[in-house]
Amino acid sequence: MTLTDIARTARTAAGALALTSRETRDAALTALADALRAEAPAIAAANQKDLEAARHSGLAAPLLHRLSLDARKLEGLAEGLCSLRALPDPVGRATLRTELSPGLVLERVSCPIGVIGVVFESRPDAFVQIASLCLKSGNACLLKGGREALHTNRELCRIVQSATVAAGLPEGWISLLESREDVHEMLSLDRYIDLIIPRGSNEFVRQIQESTRIPVMGHSAGICHLYIDRDADPEMAVRVAVDAKTQAPATCNAIETLLVHADIAGTVLPALKGAMDARGVRLLGDRRTCALIPCEAVSSRDWDTEYLDLILSVKVVDSEDEAIRHINEHGSRHTDAIITKDRAAAEHFLAAVDSADVFWNCSTRFADGFRFGLGAEVGIATGKLHARGPVGLEGLMTYKWLLRGQGQIVAPFVSGEQAFTHQPLPL
Amino acid sequence: MTLTDIARTARTAAGALALTSRETRDAALTALADALRAEAPAIAAANQKDLEAARHSGLAAPLLHRLSLDARKLEGLAEGLCSLRALPDPVGRATLRTELSPGLVLERVSCPIGVIGVVFESRPDAFVQIASLCLKSGNACLLKGGREALHTNRELCRIVQSATVAAGLPEGWISLLESREDVHEMLSLDRYIDLIIPRGSNEFVRQIQESTRIPVMGHSAGICHLYIDRDADPEMAVRVAVDAKTQAPATCNAIETLLVHADIAGTVLPALKGAMDARGVRLLGDRRTCALIPCEAVSSRDWDTEYLDLILSVKVVDSEDEAIRHINEHGSRHTDAIITKDRAAAEHFLAAVDSADVFWNCSTRFADGFRFGLGAEVGIATGKLHARGPVGLEGLMTYKWLLRGQGQIVAPFVSGEQAFTHQPLPL
Repeated sequence: MTLTDIARTARTAAGALALTSRETRDAALTALADALRAEAPAIAAANQKDLEAARHSGLAAPLLHRLSLDARKLEGLAEGLCSLRALPDPVGRATLRTELSPGLVLERVSCPIGVIGVVFESRPDAFVQIASLCLKSGNACLLKGGREALHTNRELCRIVQSATVAAGLPEGWISLLESREDVHEMLSLDRYIDLIIPRGSNEFVRQIQESTRIPVMGHSAGICHLYIDRDADPEMAVRVAVDAKTQAPATCNAIETLLVHADIAGTVLPALKGAMDARGVRLLGDRRTCALIPCEAVSSRDWDTEYLDLILSVKVVDSEDEAIRHINEHGSRHTDAIITKDRAAAEHFLAAVDSADVFWNCSTRFADGFRFGLGAEVGIATGKLHARGPVGLEGLMTYKWLLRGQGQIVAPFVSGEQAFTHQPLPL
Repeated sequence: MTLTDIARTARTAAGALALTSRETRDAALTALADALRAEAPAIAAANQKDLEAARHSGLAAPLLHRLSLDARKLEGLAEGLCSLRALPDPVGRATLRTELSPGLVLERVSCPIGVIGVVFESRPDAFVQIASLCLKSGNACLLKGGREALHTNRELCRIVQSATVAAGLPEGWISLLESREDVHEMLSLDRYIDLIIPRGSNEFVRQIQESTRIPVMGHSAGICHLYIDRDADPEMAVRVAVDAKTQAPATCNAIETLLVHADIAGTVLPALKGAMDARGVRLLGDRRTCALIPCEAVSSRDWDTEYLDLILSVKVVDSEDEAIRHINEHGSRHTDAIITKDRAAAEHFLAAVDSADVFWNCSTRFADGFRFGLGAEVGIATGKLHARGPVGLEGLMTYKWLLRGQGQIVAPFVSGEQAFTHQPLPL
C-alpha cells in the first residue's frame, strides 16, 4: 500500500470511528490491555532485537534504558489503558444548546478531529500511549516512531491492530510509518490528514511546522522562568526555585532563567546559591547577580537558551514589569511563575505574562496533563490556537453544530414575520 | 514606520489591551459610535472620492452600491457597536476550576489571542465591524481593506484610532495596511502576529494559507448540500430547498447540490422543478434526474462547483449512506442538511456528515453567527481546529492556565508523600 492508500483508508476508518459507541472503544482498550499482557514474550523478543542493534551501534546507557520495554513498563502501559477507559467519553458532548426559535434547536457537540499523524521519539511505550489516546477520542492515526525502536513498534502495532479490530474498531484506523520519506509524504496529504503532532527536539518540531499545510500541534521550546518578587517569602522562593530547576531538569517545564527583584536579591541569592551548589547547578548571572554571589557571567544569548540541564541563568530586575517584559520577550510561552506575598502583584503577573501556564507561589513542574487532573496528556502546546498548555483528550476533539428543526426556512425571519428567541437551554 | 514596526507596536499594544477592563473597552465602543455620527460629513467626503474613482473606472452598479457608505449604513454601524457593547465580556472567563491539592487551585481562563491580521474585501463598513470585534475581544489588529475603498478606510481608521485611544485604548492597537506588498510582508511576521483572517474569494483564501506560517482562520468554499430522504415530507423538502438555494444564492451557506433518494424522487422532483423554474433556477441533473424532469445534464466537475448563483446540481441516490459519502467526498465541510421524518436516519446523518454545520429539517441559510445567537460573526470557519462553523467573539479568544498555590513543589507528589485531590470547583 502506498502512503496515500494508507491515509485514504485512515480517513474512511475515521468516519466509522466517529460513529463508534463508548462501549466499543472501551472494549477495544480492554482487549488491548489483555493482549499486551498475553503477548509479553513476543514484545520482549522484538525489543531484544532493537536493544542488541542499539548496543552494537554504541547507544548511550540512558537511551538504552529508554528504548527497553520490559515487563514492568508493559504492566504500566496496561494499567494506563484501564485508567484511560475510566475517563468520561470525550465524544458527543454538548457544550452549547440554544432554542433559536420555537422548535428550532441548536446544539454544539464535540467530535473527533478525524485523522491524526503523530511523529514521536524513540520510547516504544509512547506508541501504545498515543494509540490509546487516539482510540479513546475516536481518531484514526498514522504513527511514526524512532528508528531505534523499529522492531518493537512493528510488534506493538500488529498487536494493537489485531486486538482492537477484533473488538470492533474499523480496519485501518491505525498504521505504522517507518521512514523519513514516509513522514515527508504524510506531511503533503492535507486532503486526508487533519492534524500533525510532532514530539521531539525544538529543531525537529520547527522543521515539521515548516514542511506542511496541515495544522501542527506541538511545542518547540520550554524556556520557563521563575520571578522572585520584592515581596516574596525568601524561603519559599528558594524551595520552589530548587524544585523547578532540579526536580527533573531535562523536561520542558523546568526553569531556565531566574529573575530576582533588586530589593530582595541580597537576601535570596546567597541562600539560592547554597541550595543550587548542593545540587550541582551551574549559575550564570548578570553583572548585578555576580556582584552578590560567586557565579559565571551570563551572555545575552543565554536568555534564549533551553539548557535541559542543571544550568540556570540569573538576572536582577528593578521591577515586576521589567520581569514581565523579559519573560514576554525571551520566553517560549510555556510556563512562568512568580513568588510573592503581594496578591495584586501576583494577579498582575498572571494577567500580563503571555504564556500557556502562569503560576503563583508554586513550581513550574506542575505544568503537566496528569498533574492538572486532565487524566491524560497528548503533549504541551505553546501555540495559541485550539489547545494551549498541557493537552488532554479535549485537544484531540473538534466540534460541529447541529440544528434540528421542523421545516423552518430563513425568509420569514429576514422579513420580520418570524423572530429569533435565542433561549439558552440546559446541557 | 515599517510594517515590522507597526506589527511590533501592535504586539506591545496587545499586551496592554489584554489588561483593559470591560468598562474601558465598552467606553471605547461608545466613543467610536459617537465619533462615527459626529464625523459623518468627513466620512462622506472620503467615500465620495472612492465612489468617483470607482465610477470613472467603470465599476458595476452592485459593487458601487457595496462601496458606498451612506448615512443609513453609518447609523447601522453605530447601532451595531452598541449591540456589541451589550454582549458579555469574552475576556477573563473561567472555563475550568480544579483544586489539584489543598491550597493549590488551577483555573483555565479565556484571554485575547493577541495580534490579528485581517484582509477583507471592498465593503468599507467591514472595517468598522472587524475593528469593533477585535476591540471587544481585546485583540490588537492590522487591517487591509479593498483598494477601491482606500480613502474611506483611511478616514475610518483615523476616526477609530482617535476615538478609541482618547477613551483609553493603547496607541497602535489598530493599523491600516494599504498594499499587497504590505500584506505579503505581514504574512511573514509570525513573530508578532498570532492569527490571519482572510475574507474573500476561495482562491484568495487559499493563496493566503499557502503563503504564511501564521495560523489562518477562514473558509475557502461553501459547497453545501441538501439531502431529501425517502421519508421526507415532500412539501417541506421543496420549501426548504427553495429557501436554501434562492433566499440569498451568492452566500456561502446556500446549497449548490441537491441529493434525492430514488424512492421519493418521482414525487419530489416535479414539484421542485416547478418551484425552481418560478424563481429562475437552472437545474443540472444526473441521468436519473433528467429521466424524471426536464433539465440540463450535469457534468462530474459540477459536484465540486460553488455556483453562488441560481444554479443547482441534482443527483438521485439509492441510500442515505450514498448521500453521506457524496457529501463527505464533494462538500467543503461547511453546511449540509437532511429532510426526513425518520429520526434515526436524521441522527445518523448528523453524526456521519463531517461538516461544521449539519442540519435536520431546516434551511442551510441558518448557518450564521447572528442567527445562531452568537451576537457577532467574525466569519465562517471550515477548518477543524480552534473554531468551526460560524465564529463569534469566542473565536478571537484563546485561554491560559493559572495555578495559584502556597509554595507547593512537585517532589513530594512524585515521592508519594503528598497526593493530588483533583476536586472540581464551581466556576
